[in-house]
Amino acid sequence: MAVNPDAPIEITAFRWVPELAQGLVRDLRVRWALEEAGLDYKVRLLGQERPADYLKEQPFDQVPCFRDGTVRIFESGAIVQYIGEKTEALLPRDQQGKYRAIQWTYAALNSVEPGIQHRVLLDSFYADQEWAKLRKPGADEFARNKLKRVSDWLGDKHWLEGDRFTIGDLVMLTVLRTADRGGLIESGSSLANYLARGEARPAFQRALADHMAPFPANAPQPEGVAA
Amino acid sequence: MAVNPDAPIEITAFRWVPELAQGLVRDLRVRWALEEAGLDYKVRLLGQERPADYLKEQPFDQVPCFRDGTVRIFESGAIVQYIGEKTEALLPRDQQGKYRAIQWTYAALNSVEPGIQHRVLLDSFYADQEWAKLRKPGADEFARNKLKRVSDWLGDKHWLEGDRFTIGDLVMLTVLRTADRGGLIESGSSLANYLARGEARPAFQRALADHMAPFPANAPQPEGVAA
Repeated sequence: MAVNPDAPIEITAFRWVPELAQGLVRDLRVRWALEEAGLDYKVRLLGQERPADYLKEQPFDQVPCFRDGTVRIFESGAIVQYIGEKTEALLPRDQQGKYRAIQWTYAALNSVEPGIQHRVLLDSFYADQEWAKLRKPGADEFARNKLKRVSDWLGDKHWLEGDRFTIGDLVMLTVLRTADRGGLIESGSSLANYLARGEARPAFQRALADHMAPFPANAPQPEGVAA
Repeated sequence: MAVNPDAPIEITAFRWVPELAQGLVRDLRVRWALEEAGLDYKVRLLGQERPADYLKEQPFDQVPCFRDGTVRIFESGAIVQYIGEKTEALLPRDQQGKYRAIQWTYAALNSVEPGIQHRVLLDSFYADQEWAKLRKPGADEFARNKLKRVSDWLGDKHWLEGDRFTIGDLVMLTVLRTADRGGLIESGSSLANYLARGEARPAFQRALADHMAPFPANAPQPEGVAA
């Protein structure tokens, strides 16, 4: 529902990230799931210098980490699934419905995201490297093929498994946001419409606003400008 | 426990794959989990020509698909988790233990595998491409850093969360097999020992044998040699 310093649930997020990562960092997924589930949470903001013991919480030095009472976990996919199990809003209770949703969460993170991420980083993080220029046509074809697979599956369905929005949609839509940022989603396409449906959800809008909120005040000061 | 044509559980697998993929295809994960759980299964073998409706079962045209009564799912991570939930052998029942295991399954597939896969394909699938040669030092460093993160976490523990083998180890170990095939695991290292412990499990040995069994008889005949 809201960021609340007294909430029992805590996540980690970055105090600031460069503009090209704003709106795409993985805490957004978890915030969105918490908003859909109607659960308050507090946020521990991290800078580039992590706390000394942070690798004991998150071995890959990333965000988010998640705490809920005695449960302490990392990996956004697992956290979103944990939140899904706390409430029926995001994860059906029958085994087939439940595992259809879970399968899409894994599909988003293993079958789709790596190819999208690889393609998008060629134009940003690796933009000045020769190999990135040579790789671009092949990476583009690979990424677009993965998106076509999702689009073909979706057809004219509202969500991946029909009428009901699940954690599978939530995670897939955050992957599609990265694809869209990289110019891989054609406007007016069925994936663009699916993305727009997801982003129109009030829970997403609240999550995005809270994800973005710390960035302006924590932006690095340009050198030579007095703080 | 065994491949059994009368079993209620069915998976799909490939009839034959090139040698560099043998022992690494994703049905191995699912076979291993089924063996650990003591569940019989039957196998539907596929060739390069998939059945006409296969994309309705597996939108990314991959193996394995999984059926158990009315449950029909794809994505090896989700299938392994489903098998884990059927039996306590692979997935603790308390929320913290359960989600620590699930988090490592996601970590294996999203935080570790993409970088390993990318690095290993540079020497195999993309070996003749100029970009792959230029990319190799950076991809090597990236992949080795991910492996170091896993190794640092593991320390002198037997399995990722201590004394108990879970689905998180099972999936991580299949990713480490790919890394090992690509020469990224140093012999005698703690990751090599961890991999050896996993591969020594009788359930793994049975799963690997059944995964490999169809390949020799289904290898393509060299042209000009009478069948």
